Amino acid sequence: MPPASHQTITPHPDGTGPHGYSLPLSPSGRSAMLTPPPWHFSGDVIMIDYRVDPRAASRFLPPGLTPGDDPGAAAAVFATWQWCSDSGEELSDPSRSQFSEFLILLGCAYDGAAMARCPYAWVDQAVPLVRGWVQGMPKQYGAVHQTRHGLVGRAGSRRTEGGLFAGNISVHGRRLVEAAVTLTGPVQEPPALHTVPLVHSLATPAWTTAVEQPAPLAASEVTDVEFGDIWTGTGELEFFDGLDEDFAGLRPVEVGAGHVFSYAETLKGGRLLPLPEG
Amino acid sequence: MPPASHQTITPHPDGTGPHGYSLPLSPSGRSAMLTPPPWHFSGDVIMIDYRVDPRAASRFLPPGLTPGDDPGAAAAVFATWQWCSDSGEELSDPSRSQFSEFLILLGCAYDGAAMARCPYAWVDQAVPLVRGWVQGMPKQYGAVHQTRHGLVGRAGSRRTEGGLFAGNISVHGRRLVEAAVTLTGPVQEPPALHTVPLVHSLATPAWTTAVEQPAPLAASEVTDVEFGDIWTGTGELEFFDGLDEDFAGLRPVEVGAGHVFSYAETLKGGRLLPLPEG
Amino acid sequence: MPPASHQTITPHPDGTGPHGYSLPLSPSGRSAMLTPPPWHFSGDVIMIDYRVDPRAASRFLPPGLTPGDDPGAAAAVFATWQWCSDSGEELSDPSRSQFSEFLILLGCAYDGAAMARCPYAWVDQAVPLVRGWVQGMPKQYGAVHQTRHGLVGRAGSRRTEGGLFAGNISVHGRRLVEAAVTLTGPVQEPPALHTVPLVHSLATPAWTTAVEQPAPLAASEVTDVEFGDIWTGTGELEFFDGLDEDFAGLRPVEVGAGHVFSYAETLKGGRLLPLPEG
Amino acid sequence: MPPASHQTITPHPDGTGPHGYSLPLSPSGRSAMLTPPPWHFSGDVIMIDYRVDPRAASRFLPPGLTPGDDPGAAAAVFATWQWCSDSGEELSDPSRSQFSEFLILLGCAYDGAAMARCPYAWVDQAVPLVRGWVQGMPKQYGAVHQTRHGLVGRAGSRRTEGGLFAGNISVHGRRLVEAAVTLTGPVQEPPALHTVPLVHSLATPAWTTAVEQPAPLAASEVTDVEFGDIWTGTGELEFFDGLDEDFAGLRPVEVGAGHVFSYAETLKGGRLLPLPEG
Repeated sequence: MPPASHQTITPHPDGTGPHGYSLPLSPSGRSAMLTPPPWHFSGDVIMIDYRVDPRAASRFLPPGLTPGDDPGAAAAVFATWQWCSDSGEELSDPSRSQFSEFLILLGCAYDGAAMARCPYAWVDQAVPLVRGWVQGMPKQYGAVHQTRHGLVGRAGSRRTEGGLFAGNISVHGRRLVEAAVTLTGPVQEPPALHTVPLVHSLATPAWTTAVEQPAPLAASEVTDVEFGDIWTGTGELEFFDGLDEDFAGLRPVEVGAGHVFSYAETLKGGRLLPLPEG
Repeated sequence: MPPASHQTITPHPDGTGPHGYSLPLSPSGRSAMLTPPPWHFSGDVIMIDYRVDPRAASRFLPPGLTPGDDPGAAAAVFATWQWCSDSGEELSDPSRSQFSEFLILLGCAYDGAAMARCPYAWVDQAVPLVRGWVQGMPKQYGAVHQTRHGLVGRAGSRRTEGGLFAGNISVHGRRLVEAAVTLTGPVQEPPALHTVPLVHSLATPAWTTAVEQPAPLAASEVTDVEFGDIWTGTGELEFFDGLDEDFAGLRPVEVGAGHVFSYAETLKGGRLLPLPEG
Repeated sequence: MPPASHQTITPHPDGTGPHGYSLPLSPSGRSAMLTPPPWHFSGDVIMIDYRVDPRAASRFLPPGLTPGDDPGAAAAVFATWQWCSDSGEELSDPSRSQFSEFLILLGCAYDGAAMARCPYAWVDQAVPLVRGWVQGMPKQYGAVHQTRHGLVGRAGSRRTEGGLFAGNISVHGRRLVEAAVTLTGPVQEPPALHTVPLVHSLATPAWTTAVEQPAPLAASEVTDVEFGDIWTGTGELEFFDGLDEDFAGLRPVEVGAGHVFSYAETLKGGRLLPLPEG
Repeated sequence: MPPASHQTITPHPDGTGPHGYSLPLSPSGRSAMLTPPPWHFSGDVIMIDYRVDPRAASRFLPPGLTPGDDPGAAAAVFATWQWCSDSGEELSDPSRSQFSEFLILLGCAYDGAAMARCPYAWVDQAVPLVRGWVQGMPKQYGAVHQTRHGLVGRAGSRRTEGGLFAGNISVHGRRLVEAAVTLTGPVQEPPALHTVPLVHSLATPAWTTAVEQPAPLAASEVTDVEFGDIWTGTGELEFFDGLDEDFAGLRPVEVGAGHVFSYAETLKGGRLLPLPEG
């Protein structure tokens, strides 16, 4: 019997029978909840650099990852996304092609290469949530809100000096994080932690057996990265007592600059990173 | 005993006691669900001109309103809003200051002046829903989605030639309307039905008495109108069998141009329009 | 021009034209968001008696209402409802005929008769929210959850000794109140504050004019009251810092018994209570 | 490097480092979205027996499963659940411990033993959705509503002759299925398709590699099954054009009896069923 992981589900040898990139398997394969990668993402981002206790951060790093050159570097990221598959057909139904996301990033390194580890992430739609689990990205469900970008008039927020961009996330009816950026000016360079590969753990919960072993590491492979209209400013960031002690260990010990920008990427798949010999 | 309508609720004569612009009344008045006008709105709009059977439209016009110069002129409008009170404090919490809206507009006239009648409207937040009822605007709850404006990258939509902007609304789990605009070029002039006052019926349902009488008409009073980056294009518009026969009477008999633009206004209150002598 | 309140909206004198019990007005009247009363309600209730600072409570009572025989008596009520109009047709679509509610009750008296004042209420559906405003009941939108009643098995809650029934409400992603009852035994009598009329203020926010005046008082008129399977137990009740200082003034200074019961009523309308001469 | 599937994620060899039953991995393991099985479920169920085209059903069966003794037997199931882990702590927060579900069941057999195949399922909470994927159960997100059970009064539904229990599901704002049962009488035996094991495909979408192979079969292992207050009646069932052609292939060709009952089970894990030799 073949192992159960990372497969494309195939039809019967006779060509009928259910298949697809993901569950639900169906005769034509078209009922699959997920389309296969590549997935194209376009979004507006509010990001706040901050610092955590480096010892707390290191406890979130699995074997194979080290704190890297700047232990304790972290970021809180609010993003509002539109996405599509290669066909682009999802864009004709905005009830399917949009979601909002909040995530924490920790600076780290694998074999000397700078990467980012995402210990926590929340989204407000099920398809990106499950796609997260396919990648090893720990997406849970949360209510995520952020200021809309580029509206005219007195209630609008624009990327101008003094522009205010705010974000917040609640989970199960409890506020978890609030953040804001008051813009000071445009910059050329995107924030560092948004330019390195994400490295996730391909961790599938035990169901039929109880084998205990570390989860493989996989780095996200992205192409067609585009940053637009990057501004920097003064960041604010507050964590609330809404989750658990592990999450609380990643509270800011110092809040740095805030960033507001547009961003696009194509996510093509994951690249296995060999684990160190046990 | 004073009449029950259009009052600001005052405290006890001794200065204590609950008051406020709206329910809930409270000792300081600060628990009111609604802040008093003016209300400032900034949004992105997708609008499709269309034509209805003029006789069907006229059956939605109360005494005092006539079909005007262009009987059967109508529009379907998707808008995503950010709003604030004079203090602007709502903008620091995007979970409170945003909503999406879908509404139908019918061309009409009052005493020779062109106006627009809104027979149906849906929003996805309670505060703008109740504010609608204060104005006589028939806002109900619906799930409203539209393409985000201005994102970079392959999954982004921009106001360029060929840009696709789509919207849809569902009510109680049934799709009601879908619309799309494929952009052909920028224009200077905003669509006509978005430039005239809205005229509503101040209709409060009977509770303690059963007096039958027509509802007063009130025109919305807005200032600080701003249109931004107006584009026109090819419109698509489809109504589904999700509501009732009255709504179905306003189905398109012809679909016209689509429009995509940014818009801001300040809504200051309503102006009573005398009803014709019965 | 006639006053704007408490009317049933009538059609054109020629019998056409939009009408209905509420907005939206439409040619047949059938698009109205609200059906006219009577409204029939069937629900399961978790209720915790508690006491507030009597001075804080009295500041929520408008002219005409007094604290009554037991100043400071209060209750926190979680209810999950199914409702219908006289036709009963809503019951065939459970996506329309259900909602959950949380409300605070304060003991009070009008002209010597015991009543209950509801200073705050939240529901999770728009139709009961707007019906609240028709009555003068200050319903806002909240996420309300409570233990389901009567399930078998280990994850089920039943009305037995030791049975646990919990409720909580969050508003805009912030937890507001949590409550629980651990049952000790069945009782014959329902909790007192659930047996007296509710008295509301018919407060319509100013829109076209700025007349300042007190809001009329109206007592709810209910029939066909039915209590089922009433249990009492140990109550727990906690308020969180999620709202404003007025709400915080109604925090418990003492928590009393908890009650779990089934309840049904028919709400027929409101009865005006004359205000004292200013 | 170890394979990626069905593991419990372990901490660093030094005892620190992130671990847990599922993502997110964290220092204490307590941030995991999922608690490990067993999971205890208590619910109320509305179930409608129906028949599909046996050829359409067989196209949903993977290698190893046959149509069994009654090809074309199917059921539509609405369930409202409360759940907890062994600790039971989830029950104190009803915003976490409840969800609603709709699923389709097809009769089938494995090695001569009667089982049920679930080609489609939808839930309204993220935790049970992800738990579904752990089991190979194809849970997607949907808005699921069903009549509440056991309420007193005119708007209440009770298990009595003539009692009406309705359910519906919408996905992305489109109605997918509506069902109803009008009760005729109590019965002793639960409906057959709710008494056999579910058999799922452990299908993990490809991420780092593109190996094509069939997915292992796993049968759900449940204990502590309890049925309560089983009633039968006349079933109604309607599918709408809201999904795709594969789903449409499972439309009813005949609608049978409806069933309303309470149900509890403990889900302990999955048992691998060897696939036939290719």
